[in-house]
Amino acid sequence: MDRFELIKMLKQPSDEKIVLLVLDGLGGLPQNGKTELESAQTPNMDKLASQSESGLMTPIITGITPGSGPGHLALFGYDPLEFLIGRGILSALGVKFPIRDGDLAARVNFATLDAKGKVNDRRAGRIPDEINRAMCEKIREIKIPGIEIFIETEKEHRAALILRGEHFSEKLSETDPQKTGVPPLPVKALDNKPETVHTAELLNQFLSEVRKKLKDEKPANGILLRGFALHQRIPSFSEVYGLHACAIAGYPMYRGLASLVGMDVIETESGVEPQFKKFAEVWGQYDFYFLHIKYTDSRGEDGDFKAKVKVIEEVDRHLPAILKLKPDVLAITADHSTPSTYRAHSWHPVPTLVSSKWARRSGVKKFGETELLRGTLGTMHSMDLMLLVLAHAGKLAKFGA
Amino acid sequence: MDRFELIKMLKQPSDEKIVLLVLDGLGGLPQNGKTELESAQTPNMDKLASQSESGLMTPIITGITPGSGPGHLALFGYDPLEFLIGRGILSALGVKFPIRDGDLAARVNFATLDAKGKVNDRRAGRIPDEINRAMCEKIREIKIPGIEIFIETEKEHRAALILRGEHFSEKLSETDPQKTGVPPLPVKALDNKPETVHTAELLNQFLSEVRKKLKDEKPANGILLRGFALHQRIPSFSEVYGLHACAIAGYPMYRGLASLVGMDVIETESGVEPQFKKFAEVWGQYDFYFLHIKYTDSRGEDGDFKAKVKVIEEVDRHLPAILKLKPDVLAITADHSTPSTYRAHSWHPVPTLVSSKWARRSGVKKFGETELLRGTLGTMHSMDLMLLVLAHAGKLAKFGA
Repeated sequence: MDRFELIKMLKQPSDEKIVLLVLDGLGGLPQNGKTELESAQTPNMDKLASQSESGLMTPIITGITPGSGPGHLALFGYDPLEFLIGRGILSALGVKFPIRDGDLAARVNFATLDAKGKVNDRRAGRIPDEINRAMCEKIREIKIPGIEIFIETEKEHRAALILRGEHFSEKLSETDPQKTGVPPLPVKALDNKPETVHTAELLNQFLSEVRKKLKDEKPANGILLRGFALHQRIPSFSEVYGLHACAIAGYPMYRGLASLVGMDVIETESGVEPQFKKFAEVWGQYDFYFLHIKYTDSRGEDGDFKAKVKVIEEVDRHLPAILKLKPDVLAITADHSTPSTYRAHSWHPVPTLVSSKWARRSGVKKFGETELLRGTLGTMHSMDLMLLVLAHAGKLAKFGA
Repeated sequence: MDRFELIKMLKQPSDEKIVLLVLDGLGGLPQNGKTELESAQTPNMDKLASQSESGLMTPIITGITPGSGPGHLALFGYDPLEFLIGRGILSALGVKFPIRDGDLAARVNFATLDAKGKVNDRRAGRIPDEINRAMCEKIREIKIPGIEIFIETEKEHRAALILRGEHFSEKLSETDPQKTGVPPLPVKALDNKPETVHTAELLNQFLSEVRKKLKDEKPANGILLRGFALHQRIPSFSEVYGLHACAIAGYPMYRGLASLVGMDVIETESGVEPQFKKFAEVWGQYDFYFLHIKYTDSRGEDGDFKAKVKVIEEVDRHLPAILKLKPDVLAITADHSTPSTYRAHSWHPVPTLVSSKWARRSGVKKFGETELLRGTLGTMHSMDLMLLVLAHAGKLAKFGA
């Protein structure tokens, strides 16, 4: 019996409500002896951690640094080595495109090309969304027999491209040269299968049409394609866990990941206060709430230790807004570490707490990496968190007689 | 996606250098309250451990006592339950025999037989290497149609036998009766497959020829065969990790294991000082250095607690010779425990530290089994160590978008 078969067999309804609060990239490395989380004043999280199950989680497997996709799939209980979700799919989901099995998606960057067709600016000066939308309108006029073409504005210079047709392949090279002063690359088939060669030809034909359409535009007179990915259905939260779930996330990619597993995506501004407020508004309508705070990761990637500490403190100040609604199970964790000193995602295990009336109390004195080594959960795998919160919420029946 | 596919996809070059220092059989059990490592004065390792990631590692799975082969394969990141390396292959590799796929290898013990052909001494009085070499010369004169026969002196009474031909099987019983006063056993086919029956017949024919060749020799007038094993290629360190690796090991078996995964084997005397000196000599030529110290295990098997403590202290005294070369990542660990009180390999988890600038500091006060329970790595699996050191060395890209 595989994992999902086991869960489907044991899942049972209950009134309990689960909140998964993800502080993206929360885990850190020490500066002057303390990590970002250890340096932050977090009286609410500290008190909660001492009364909760707590520990650390390895996001994927030891030593593997997760991107946002695999990091979140693991938190949602899906094996990221089995469910490989390409960036193009995440972009399409992020703009709420109703993607279907077999659709081919890619990330689009609008770019500025010079008179000779060489890339001058890979982000077209980060054009405003209105220009992006106007360019998408033009591209939608392109017709290629046998396929449907969809392009949707994401933000600034970014858009999502979706091709619908038959027998596509995703084994394709990207067209972004990753530098300026050279022309965009053609799409190349990365294997010799007929569907791959065919898909590459279609895309190059499409790109040639785009060049004609945009040639007199300024500054977005070209596009770069990345992250080609075929869409394959993955089982939903409702199917696997029997959960009616929602996501309150400020950023398109995380909304995309949530909708991929069948969560309702709640419209919200990005930010601790507006997201927590939105959470309170929808409280009671769902039995699972995924709350995603982005800025811990952003400040880590900036290498700004103090700013990351501030974001953590901001979350802690607003935490009572969640606690006063008395969720039956509240997990606070991260998809991966983003240490400010490392300025990037890393492989280090992430701080985790699971609060519920069935928690063994870990008695840790601080919600922080070092103290959590003494927590009740030890170092577990992120993929096991869903099982743990389901158990605490009474949503898993006994296995076997 | 399986583990090796994942690693191959993520591996990336970096200038960082990794040192894997293996103290064979390091883990122990307490005598008067402290293990060998805990009893040893190890100021250098203690200081390093406090500033490093640290913890314990389960060599294979809980409760499984590894031989040297599986123990090292796990340290090298190869699943020992998938890659089963027979003792015969290790012997052949240990004498640097250029083994090929499909070769059948076995360990040879020269033995003394009495007038009735019964075993008098299973090790022929540990004959000197010269006699061993002379006996091998004689055996090489044997011709059997359709196969090539190679025999190479290992040390004292030990040699490696390699048969080259077609369609061999390794499902064969050993000929060492494991006691004296009885004749060597014939080789028996352990299944009914034609290739197995055929291989057993060939070997019995070979053994009959050996008896004729050696009948007038003294004391080595017989041989015993053990550890029949077919050679199958396993992916190299270079293929899997992109690493240019070397081994500085004093004993043939560990050189054999290292060459099996494609490491360059550096010629060296056996001993802490000469091996560390050799390490310093080749420093800079590779990006991965496997340093294997044998005597911790030997003294554990002797049941000599104090002598094992002394070996550990000797390593600690010489550790600065490694530290002053400033390896980017230094892991100190073991392939298994060999508690002196137990006088054999055991299943107990092994002490481990990983030093790097990206380490979360564990703050442990002593490099020792009890204190390491509070380390940052918890109790991990040996097979995950390679991923961890690759991550710390910047040799693994992010997984997924």
